[in-house]
Amino acid sequence: MSLLAVGSIAFDNVKTPAGEVKDVLGGSGVYFSCAASFFGPVRLVGVVGEDFPDEHLEFLVSRGVDTAGITRCKGRTFRWCGSYEGAMNEATTLEVDLNVFGDFEPEIPPSYRDSLFLFLANGAPRTQLCVLDQLPQARFTVADTMNLWIENEREDLRKVIERVDLLFINEGEVRMLTGKSSLVEAGREAVAMGAKGVVVKKGEHGALLVMKEECFALPAFPVDRLVDPTGAGDSFAGGFMGYVSSAGDLEPETIKRGLAHATVAASFNVENFSLRRFSEIDRSDIDKRYQRYAAMLRLD
Amino acid sequence: MSLLAVGSIAFDNVKTPAGEVKDVLGGSGVYFSCAASFFGPVRLVGVVGEDFPDEHLEFLVSRGVDTAGITRCKGRTFRWCGSYEGAMNEATTLEVDLNVFGDFEPEIPPSYRDSLFLFLANGAPRTQLCVLDQLPQARFTVADTMNLWIENEREDLRKVIERVDLLFINEGEVRMLTGKSSLVEAGREAVAMGAKGVVVKKGEHGALLVMKEECFALPAFPVDRLVDPTGAGDSFAGGFMGYVSSAGDLEPETIKRGLAHATVAASFNVENFSLRRFSEIDRSDIDKRYQRYAAMLRLD
Repeated sequence: MSLLAVGSIAFDNVKTPAGEVKDVLGGSGVYFSCAASFFGPVRLVGVVGEDFPDEHLEFLVSRGVDTAGITRCKGRTFRWCGSYEGAMNEATTLEVDLNVFGDFEPEIPPSYRDSLFLFLANGAPRTQLCVLDQLPQARFTVADTMNLWIENEREDLRKVIERVDLLFINEGEVRMLTGKSSLVEAGREAVAMGAKGVVVKKGEHGALLVMKEECFALPAFPVDRLVDPTGAGDSFAGGFMGYVSSAGDLEPETIKRGLAHATVAASFNVENFSLRRFSEIDRSDIDKRYQRYAAMLRLD
Repeated sequence: MSLLAVGSIAFDNVKTPAGEVKDVLGGSGVYFSCAASFFGPVRLVGVVGEDFPDEHLEFLVSRGVDTAGITRCKGRTFRWCGSYEGAMNEATTLEVDLNVFGDFEPEIPPSYRDSLFLFLANGAPRTQLCVLDQLPQARFTVADTMNLWIENEREDLRKVIERVDLLFINEGEVRMLTGKSSLVEAGREAVAMGAKGVVVKKGEHGALLVMKEECFALPAFPVDRLVDPTGAGDSFAGGFMGYVSSAGDLEPETIKRGLAHATVAASFNVENFSLRRFSEIDRSDIDKRYQRYAAMLRLD
């Protein structure tokens, strides 16, 4: 079923203990849609500048991403420079140039308005609300967020949380949002703000889905060599939404398998810089690792 | 099959965000043996002072712990005062009085020398080596350790690691031991030191078993209300060794199910102070939660 993502498209400079890359393709919308595209078509709404090469757009198309929603504007593409140290659990942002992304007011093309699954990548809550307004028929919506909006746009963020099915948020951020230390308690508190569920992303420690009644934890797939965690959270969301939108129902088992596929997608993404690992694999690699992951967790 | 633990028996003062207790029963040997006793008999070697009440010994006996290996010495029982804040991932030790535990030189009673499963709770590596010397026929040995020994007794600790089947160690400590940030890499490095496997304990994030070829991750069982994490690591080890020693083989599936039972045992322990939660439950509660845990992780 039709999946739409609204997110950033970027050039990244990234330095990790495993190496360094410059001017590589990145952005939340890109990571999300590449991960989701293993499971079916995905529509991407975003903005690039005049400096964005056609080969990147061609790469997205080759992965099954519908790029008709990407606008090219006057100016330069969003740029992010960051580094990771030690266990690479957190990025240090060295530089952000919003460029054309700074004035991004996503307009959903009429041909996309029938999208039933919607992912709002991390962005200003006001922008996320504006997208929600344009897609009243969306059946299943997920929003990501970050510390900046929790600190500065809390009121609008609360409105987003009230309107989405799932909030994806990382460990430190859900603590910041709720003031609770225990992740289960923090998750419940965030659910009380109005979302149906909260998915707490814990990096190398996996993820936790907290709903009103239920709570569900998954470990990360243990990777032998972590190279670059950039985009892991968006790849996780992409694997999740890709799987769920292709599954045809929203049963608890589907949501659970979606989170497991999310884990597998993210585990591939962190094995190399930028989209390199994704560009080497296909659905059968995802499925094989999913089987290994399911076998690891089979206890009876 | 016969399981023997060597560890501390203590009085604890503990303060957590959920409350405060004074002079309660604690100690690594106590938590371990109470958790293991859900699965079968367990022999405990330890030392108490003249101030240790018979009712605590009677409690242990009532749980199926063989207390014939507990020596009563002149002086006071080991005492630990600690507190936890926030997510309670780490204890702050406020006071330690080793008392009779300071001169503890465990002598394994002749009737215990046929023990096939051995758990060496956190303690001086020299003491752990001395126990290993007394139990040459042990078939499966596990040792726990802590930062103090990694910093100050590294050479002796290396000898322990070479001689045991599994090293149980927490997240921060395995990083300290190996200098590696990634837990998979740190685990592999610790395995290269000579243990067959390393179990990295991650508190609310679960556990990771790293072996030469394989790697196996489990999430924690999500508990609604974390009251006191004291003894969680030893309860985890007790659930593991209790299950494995009662299972009759050391197949990978048994080790995996052992770690899952370890997770379940620890999840009960943290729901109240001291041994309170353990004293309320029996094997059927463990089994019920294990089934819920297995169902949570069933992906196919």
